[in-house]
Amino acid sequence: LQIGSKVKNLTVGDRMAIEPGVPCRYCEFCKTGRYHLCPDMIFCATPPADGNLVRYYKHAADFCFKLPDHVTMEEGALLEPLAVGIHACKRGGVSAGHVVLVLGAGPIGLLTMLTAKAFGAHKVLIIDILQSRLDFAKSLGADYTLLIGKDSNEAELVRKIHALLEGHPDVSFDVSGAQTTIRLALLATKSGGVAVLVGMGAPEQTVPLAGALSREVDIRGIFRYVNDYPTALAMVASGKINVKPLVTHHFSIEESLEAYEVARQGAGIKVMIHVQPRDTNNPQKF
Amino acid sequence: LQIGSKVKNLTVGDRMAIEPGVPCRYCEFCKTGRYHLCPDMIFCATPPADGNLVRYYKHAADFCFKLPDHVTMEEGALLEPLAVGIHACKRGGVSAGHVVLVLGAGPIGLLTMLTAKAFGAHKVLIIDILQSRLDFAKSLGADYTLLIGKDSNEAELVRKIHALLEGHPDVSFDVSGAQTTIRLALLATKSGGVAVLVGMGAPEQTVPLAGALSREVDIRGIFRYVNDYPTALAMVASGKINVKPLVTHHFSIEESLEAYEVARQGAGIKVMIHVQPRDTNNPQKF
Amino acid sequence: LQIGSKVKNLTVGDRMAIEPGVPCRYCEFCKTGRYHLCPDMIFCATPPADGNLVRYYKHAADFCFKLPDHVTMEEGALLEPLAVGIHACKRGGVSAGHVVLVLGAGPIGLLTMLTAKAFGAHKVLIIDILQSRLDFAKSLGADYTLLIGKDSNEAELVRKIHALLEGHPDVSFDVSGAQTTIRLALLATKSGGVAVLVGMGAPEQTVPLAGALSREVDIRGIFRYVNDYPTALAMVASGKINVKPLVTHHFSIEESLEAYEVARQGAGIKVMIHVQPRDTNNPQKF
Amino acid sequence: LQIGSKVKNLTVGDRMAIEPGVPCRYCEFCKTGRYHLCPDMIFCATPPADGNLVRYYKHAADFCFKLPDHVTMEEGALLEPLAVGIHACKRGGVSAGHVVLVLGAGPIGLLTMLTAKAFGAHKVLIIDILQSRLDFAKSLGADYTLLIGKDSNEAELVRKIHALLEGHPDVSFDVSGAQTTIRLALLATKSGGVAVLVGMGAPEQTVPLAGALSREVDIRGIFRYVNDYPTALAMVASGKINVKPLVTHHFSIEESLEAYEVARQGAGIKVMIHVQPRDTNNPQKF
Repeated sequence: LQIGSKVKNLTVGDRMAIEPGVPCRYCEFCKTGRYHLCPDMIFCATPPADGNLVRYYKHAADFCFKLPDHVTMEEGALLEPLAVGIHACKRGGVSAGHVVLVLGAGPIGLLTMLTAKAFGAHKVLIIDILQSRLDFAKSLGADYTLLIGKDSNEAELVRKIHALLEGHPDVSFDVSGAQTTIRLALLATKSGGVAVLVGMGAPEQTVPLAGALSREVDIRGIFRYVNDYPTALAMVASGKINVKPLVTHHFSIEESLEAYEVARQGAGIKVMIHVQPRDTNNPQKF
Repeated sequence: LQIGSKVKNLTVGDRMAIEPGVPCRYCEFCKTGRYHLCPDMIFCATPPADGNLVRYYKHAADFCFKLPDHVTMEEGALLEPLAVGIHACKRGGVSAGHVVLVLGAGPIGLLTMLTAKAFGAHKVLIIDILQSRLDFAKSLGADYTLLIGKDSNEAELVRKIHALLEGHPDVSFDVSGAQTTIRLALLATKSGGVAVLVGMGAPEQTVPLAGALSREVDIRGIFRYVNDYPTALAMVASGKINVKPLVTHHFSIEESLEAYEVARQGAGIKVMIHVQPRDTNNPQKF
Repeated sequence: LQIGSKVKNLTVGDRMAIEPGVPCRYCEFCKTGRYHLCPDMIFCATPPADGNLVRYYKHAADFCFKLPDHVTMEEGALLEPLAVGIHACKRGGVSAGHVVLVLGAGPIGLLTMLTAKAFGAHKVLIIDILQSRLDFAKSLGADYTLLIGKDSNEAELVRKIHALLEGHPDVSFDVSGAQTTIRLALLATKSGGVAVLVGMGAPEQTVPLAGALSREVDIRGIFRYVNDYPTALAMVASGKINVKPLVTHHFSIEESLEAYEVARQGAGIKVMIHVQPRDTNNPQKF
Repeated sequence: LQIGSKVKNLTVGDRMAIEPGVPCRYCEFCKTGRYHLCPDMIFCATPPADGNLVRYYKHAADFCFKLPDHVTMEEGALLEPLAVGIHACKRGGVSAGHVVLVLGAGPIGLLTMLTAKAFGAHKVLIIDILQSRLDFAKSLGADYTLLIGKDSNEAELVRKIHALLEGHPDVSFDVSGAQTTIRLALLATKSGGVAVLVGMGAPEQTVPLAGALSREVDIRGIFRYVNDYPTALAMVASGKINVKPLVTHHFSIEESLEAYEVARQGAGIKVMIHVQPRDTNNPQKF
């Protein structure tokens, strides 16, 4: 374990969360605060960069975030998907009093919902095709849930969304990337609102663009995150967002193949692979 | 009790909160979403408009906000100062993860603090010259408090603020209007941050402008509120902001002089004057 | 000719431009500065409101803009399409130094191009399927033009756009509404830029959404204009935008059918119908 | 003359403009697009960094901007003060149709005026205490000028400003740093507008803060520039801003002391010191 001679924010032995991408620092995107769009970004596990299933690893110190003692390594690992939710909420301009729609109740959908509430959203409705996911979302704090099926009528669903929310959502998030839910986001969002399309589905989509755009519903995508790790860590450290219930499985690094198999089967929400023995890496137990 | 023939959002007998100003609706300010700056605003108790210590009163329906059954009349009345806090936080751009400084722990300071937290602020430090107010602020959820005296050293106070917050506040609110605290807001705010001056003190102030401005600390004032009542009501109705502890005294309209005397002496936080018998005006008791 | 007793900005006999929509002034959209989205808007020639091919007409005074003596009635009439271009540039966030792409060289495309340049755009490339329109655009000040055909290769066109501009456009405007050009706007815009879709084509469009959104190209539509007439008038009155070359045909109100026929055939750019004798309505000749 | 092996944007012999500060690239300010606020900035001629009155000099390639052939070295040198004007206009949110007030007609005031017009400002009024400067400003394109004296009455001046502009300025720039003009900026700016304080005068200023802030006039300072060189170069290269008239004196590097003396006496606007023989450094003569 070593540390660079100019590094001031870390000392050997610190527990930390790693923001996995390091940009070039010299291009227009890096200089204008949008380093996530840097074309020369080196991002963990994005070829040609190797993945992180290793015991030792070198990373730029300014993309390492020291965890306070009361924040667990699992929470640190979950800053990555949480940063996606935070970036999505920032891009959507979620603010206090907003009515929010989240389409998709997988990990990113759940974290977007939790983030929207931490940003002050008044009501959040979350939609999925699995009742079990909706039940879990409800247990995490969703104000409303709506189960949809493959043969649901689009116009009818939009009416249901508006009825449940007693109004139109100021901001909608599609986190599934499916054409069905992208369409719902465009149709249901309030005039002058924002539809954030987080999920990346098929390259080509057939969507009712004109209707949304002529109501000045802005359509915004997201690419990973940028300057969102500090916010993510602040929200977790202060208890405003509790990410722990999302971790459903634990494996050691030697059990990685098994971990991937569980994740592939969709059995849990978030599957953790631990590099260190589990009883040593947390100064405090929760 | 009567209602206009075109009014759709209200029926006779509805309990509601009144946003006290009605603008001209025709000028540039009204059309660009800043109706609070309308030069022809008619505002309750601002001459020549009469005050509201009356049993019957006529008001524009779109500035009347129907209270849900579970929201009390006291909460409805407190939407007014809460709207100030909300407007201040919107003007300051408070968002999730922000570190916030509030200078002054009177009603507006407390409501600004509560609002900042509801907007996702990570840490809020509140400062006052009375320990009793700080204790009350702490009980409402302030993360940090700091007692200052008339002879406190300015540079030392700035250091204490930064030490307590483990950093510089992204947004500072001065709610006292005193030159001392305005100066602290300008000096303590992070480079590139915002100092919101809510309190209106002496017309002329001697302040270290150059230092703040050369660090690109933006200085913003507020004038009442604009489009903030819906947010205020949403935050109270959903329980995200609890304004009830601020009400310390109750009087009937016949006891108005006594109520003013209590308020004048600064004995409580918020003094309520009830127009209707107190046991009839709330459908639900809390 | 009459004027309301409370009207201060006009006197009988004033020449003026009319912003054709009058909103309700009471709804959320009206109060938040987005009155163009008001669901109760009454808009000239949009049923059930009658059109304006009349000699006498009643309109809300605050939507009437008095023309300075040196601004002609033709220029006043062209404030309407110019307001669309201005609204589009505001929505796109066009600012000094920007590289801009305009897809479609009809009247709205031309006015969007002129507006973008008046907003400080560094380079504007305009694209059309007719060389005659591009020649006209060039004469008005387009920096670059590109002729496209029905069988143009999409990827090749994107390369040509980037080559001509020596970079990627910060803001793209599609003013045609055709799927072909909407696609080009999404594909060609710089990462982190804005694609403004001004033209309203088929309700359903098949577009490469994921590619644009994952580069954080924001997609924004426009609906008419809002608070844009004052800017339009200022730009014309100060000579920053010269709209006169767009008027190619003149008819008196008695010749309206003929005028419509010329417009239908697409023979000119803008066809004027004059209600008053042409030699009396302009105090100054140009 | 040498170039780094990874540098792609430059080749030996290129003429270029140098943005004089190089930030750390690692801190929060650098990552959020506000590198000018980086506390570890190394800035030419700001101790301990040496000045640039040298024949050979090493600089980070991404802060070197290659000049097109038709842009002279003098224009390249003037990108520095122009970047200040551009940063000021961006901070002030100057946009098309705006009415602008500039207080001070020295080099920065003149460049701010030229920039505001290039950003689409409708009318610009420039104020100074010297008629000669105002005459020069007028020759550069100022719409209105106003001479003020030491004993001018403040309220009267505000009335004159409003009368000349037929309204209140949307954005005011104080570039002198004098208390007198800072006060005018705060008093004259339109409610809801922006007062940009560019000049840095005395550390302590006595100003009518409450009046400006209660009208929601935002007060913003500037610190140098950030990401403004590309805009500055684009505006000069495209001819939208002509900076050449500002250069009134030329000296060779051997005559530097004389040059400083001329600048000290305030005899000219901008004094150039040439490192290379003047007839070799421009591929094209103007």
